[in-house]
Amino acid sequence: MKTYLDCIPCFFKQALHAARIAGSDEITQKRILDEVARILPGFSLNSSPPEMGLIIHRLIKGLTLMEDPYSQIKAESNRAALRIYPALEERLSASDERLLTAVQLAIAGNIIDYGAQDSLEVSRELQKILNLERKTLSEDDKSLFDYPQFRQALSSARTVLYLADNAGETVFDRILIEEIRRIDRDKRIIYAVKEKPIINDALAEDAYQCAIDKVAEIVSSGSDAPGTVLSLCSIEFLKLYREADMVISKGQGNFEALSEERRSIFFLFMAKCHVVARDVGCNRGDIILYDNSRKIP
Amino acid sequence: MKTYLDCIPCFFKQALHAARIAGSDEITQKRILDEVARILPGFSLNSSPPEMGLIIHRLIKGLTLMEDPYSQIKAESNRAALRIYPALEERLSASDERLLTAVQLAIAGNIIDYGAQDSLEVSRELQKILNLERKTLSEDDKSLFDYPQFRQALSSARTVLYLADNAGETVFDRILIEEIRRIDRDKRIIYAVKEKPIINDALAEDAYQCAIDKVAEIVSSGSDAPGTVLSLCSIEFLKLYREADMVISKGQGNFEALSEERRSIFFLFMAKCHVVARDVGCNRGDIILYDNSRKIP
Repeated sequence: MKTYLDCIPCFFKQALHAARIAGSDEITQKRILDEVARILPGFSLNSSPPEMGLIIHRLIKGLTLMEDPYSQIKAESNRAALRIYPALEERLSASDERLLTAVQLAIAGNIIDYGAQDSLEVSRELQKILNLERKTLSEDDKSLFDYPQFRQALSSARTVLYLADNAGETVFDRILIEEIRRIDRDKRIIYAVKEKPIINDALAEDAYQCAIDKVAEIVSSGSDAPGTVLSLCSIEFLKLYREADMVISKGQGNFEALSEERRSIFFLFMAKCHVVARDVGCNRGDIILYDNSRKIP
Repeated sequence: MKTYLDCIPCFFKQALHAARIAGSDEITQKRILDEVARILPGFSLNSSPPEMGLIIHRLIKGLTLMEDPYSQIKAESNRAALRIYPALEERLSASDERLLTAVQLAIAGNIIDYGAQDSLEVSRELQKILNLERKTLSEDDKSLFDYPQFRQALSSARTVLYLADNAGETVFDRILIEEIRRIDRDKRIIYAVKEKPIINDALAEDAYQCAIDKVAEIVSSGSDAPGTVLSLCSIEFLKLYREADMVISKGQGNFEALSEERRSIFFLFMAKCHVVARDVGCNRGDIILYDNSRKIP
């Protein structure tokens, strides 16, 4: 997805939010916004929003000297999600369509960071997921829920590349990956995390904390952009990306980075802003399973 | 009110919105945002938001060559408000406390521009005002509704300076001014409008279109800032401002520009953003009658 003009005010909003998370004072916050302003005229709208996200968060790291402002939030997200892991498993056991339920839980996990700024909110968001999930089941807009295509693609895929999004959400990914593995023990599943801290995106340590290593290979994308911007990824990752039979992409950042790719990718995410919602053709807050190959003639 | 850091993303949002209202193409819209970005590092947070508003809107005028992008919206706001004028009068006649009702209608008129982007929306907003007004009556947070002080100040004032806000809202101002004049025919009432087009703020022509000249003297503030920034006003206006026994200030822009003044000013407005709401100590969307002399020891 290219950067829309409506993304620009939001860049400043995100920068201010992150500057505050990093604990900077007001003078530093203003300086961060001024620096974003200085960069803006040179930023091409043909770039995707995560490319600006990367610039902004590197700037914040540089000016606040905080390498990982979100480390506490991430750790607490993992812990909180692990606490409800048994409840997620239980829901799966009670389901008549286990794979569908696992997919829905994995997408629901993408809600975690939605406005969550502290551990209390993370728990609250998780509770909402557990309460809301049944609602999600019945109210899906079927036109943007490509589950049959997903199931079909999965049945024939030998190698699945799973692009992680946030810490905490990782536990929900594990539910889906476990279900995929239960159906077919021999599938190769690769779980790709970010190379270095960026917002609350999952790193290898988060994947290990959530025991993803028990069910998948953990690899790094080689990049710390908040979305899989291929031009910034490592050659090793790109090889995996090209060779994977199926790509499952979690979260809005990965959608923004990869939506114009000319290969099949299954995007699982909640549309968290109206710009992305308009780009996809849904409403803000909608839960999406979108098969990118729809666009390929 | 000083400019808060949270105002900065909003400056870009407002600039983009106004650039679109002016009918500019995407390239010009991006150029406008880039220019705002270039100005930002030099803008002091000690200035009030309307000062940035003025810079932004002058920039848009310069780059789009549209002297008055909101002229159609203003004309339609006036017409739509004039259409419901009889209904407003009727409500006043039915009221046991006419002055209170007139004050509430005048504040309700401040809702008009809230998200209104075309004439259809203006009519819809007006309909909402008529429907909501009764709700407003009962649900006021009394702690931010200084009506007794307002009535008291009015009873002893010989000269009232009334600072206009938006076109259309002018009709609601007329309701209040007519009521003030009904109580005391000899009061001098001065209705101050903007000198030149700025957003949808009322100009002299709007005041005449809404027949304010029948009940008050129409003067210009001498400035085209979207809020009465005193340092930008004419000497003639400042004389009126200093000599007026009572100042009634409509709208958020005037609040932002004048809230730190050390004189009694009655601010009548809806808190349209969370920054202003926090500054005042209310919730976003609240209807406010705030006596500035509260802050003076």
